[in-house]
Amino acid sequence: MKIQRALLTAASPSQRTLPLQSLVDRDGARRTALAIILEEVTAAGVEEVGIVICPGDQAAYQAAAGGHAARLRFIEQTSPLGYGHAVHCGREFIGNSPFLLLVADHLYVSSSERGCAAQLLHIAGTEECAVSAVQPTHESKLNRYGAAGGRLVAGRPGLYEIEDLIEKPTPTEAEQRLIVPGLRAGHYLCYFGMHVLTPAVMDILDERLREVSDPTHRQLTGALRVLADRERYLAAELQGQRFDIAEKYGLLTAQLALALQGSGREEVLSILLELLASQRSR
Amino acid sequence: MKIQRALLTAASPSQRTLPLQSLVDRDGARRTALAIILEEVTAAGVEEVGIVICPGDQAAYQAAAGGHAARLRFIEQTSPLGYGHAVHCGREFIGNSPFLLLVADHLYVSSSERGCAAQLLHIAGTEECAVSAVQPTHESKLNRYGAAGGRLVAGRPGLYEIEDLIEKPTPTEAEQRLIVPGLRAGHYLCYFGMHVLTPAVMDILDERLREVSDPTHRQLTGALRVLADRERYLAAELQGQRFDIAEKYGLLTAQLALALQGSGREEVLSILLELLASQRSR
Repeated sequence: MKIQRALLTAASPSQRTLPLQSLVDRDGARRTALAIILEEVTAAGVEEVGIVICPGDQAAYQAAAGGHAARLRFIEQTSPLGYGHAVHCGREFIGNSPFLLLVADHLYVSSSERGCAAQLLHIAGTEECAVSAVQPTHESKLNRYGAAGGRLVAGRPGLYEIEDLIEKPTPTEAEQRLIVPGLRAGHYLCYFGMHVLTPAVMDILDERLREVSDPTHRQLTGALRVLADRERYLAAELQGQRFDIAEKYGLLTAQLALALQGSGREEVLSILLELLASQRSR
Repeated sequence: MKIQRALLTAASPSQRTLPLQSLVDRDGARRTALAIILEEVTAAGVEEVGIVICPGDQAAYQAAAGGHAARLRFIEQTSPLGYGHAVHCGREFIGNSPFLLLVADHLYVSSSERGCAAQLLHIAGTEECAVSAVQPTHESKLNRYGAAGGRLVAGRPGLYEIEDLIEKPTPTEAEQRLIVPGLRAGHYLCYFGMHVLTPAVMDILDERLREVSDPTHRQLTGALRVLADRERYLAAELQGQRFDIAEKYGLLTAQLALALQGSGREEVLSILLELLASQRSR
């Protein structure tokens, strides 16, 4: 399974300026969040990126993409009808091939040589099926993510066959349906915001979006649950962390992680000490 | 001396997107750097803000100004001819009144009840003369700032009569001309990026900008040195810190300072601990 196209969703009206924010990447270069995401994707071998945007944002995103601007194909979502709908807007761009799906308001900091997207594409290539990245997450944060239940693939630590899937489960729902043997107590496999999906998911979204009376059909999670019924669909723990920059201190946290994991470690640790010391002396 | 107008310079081609960056302010609200600066200025009683911009940036700045957009008057600097030239672009807006001058790529975090701009305006109002805010700064950072030499105003700790002024002095120049009695060894009074100036500075810039053969005439520092010869001109230490968000980790440092000094202190300290702990365990 070779993945040449990625779909990046950036059309949420409340978050459209996040990919334009300026950060210092792991190597110490100042870049936009969008350029950092595009670097992650292209380092994994993806050639073209379809980006689902609000109408009117194309010029700003084009400018923010830096050296990767030529890889972008813009797709407008003309009404904010949910995440599943945004993904479905990329249907023509994706065609009949498996694709990488990412959200534009998450940044990834890998703890291995290989970036998170590259790790995921490697797993999808080996397993020849759809795979979503997951991160064991404490139940106190379940209200922010989709979460999967399933069983370990024999002999493959960190790889799970997905059997159930709930968007923002309550702790009770999670305990009843999503317990995964081997995880720490109170932890669940929460979605990481990064998937390799087969084009079957576009057909499923197509069917579900026609039933407009049910607004949950506009979400992606329900479509992925159907996908798990129809095809082999895995969840994979990656070596790295995701940072949701839409959270209150999300940009700060992502910037700290990029610096502490990269070339800026010493510099940022001394900035921290200097700030804390100057406050203590007052 | 009552100050009703502020001039904010934001036309440096390399830094025009900095005021548009998103931060979480001391009270925990997500705002642009520009909105945080405008809040600082209006909390000091300033009614109108003239902002010197690159042509084409008006719409983005207007949107980034949030609730303060109605106070903005846009002034275009059509060629990047230096900081003194940018200030001179605001000549008509300022008219014949003293004004507050700020750079749009610095953020201020006060350590007292009163904001930094309000502290400076209070001093200017009491002293009835031009005053630049300064911060005692180690000589290793002299290459980044203008620095002033002078003598303490009797009975007014932290207030100095400016006698000399050099833009980015070498340590040798600083030692020969800018030693200020009472500061820690190796420290000099570096500019803070915030001034109350009299309209005389516009006349001085007018004269100097005509002598286009000398590029130093495009800088503000030389004009301020002339001002010190013509009028009483003070330097004041404020209770607070300046953060230059154009520096490599400047946005990160300013965000950390805003959070640690404000309502986000506990939350950010626990984010820091969690990040450092997750790295140590790998």
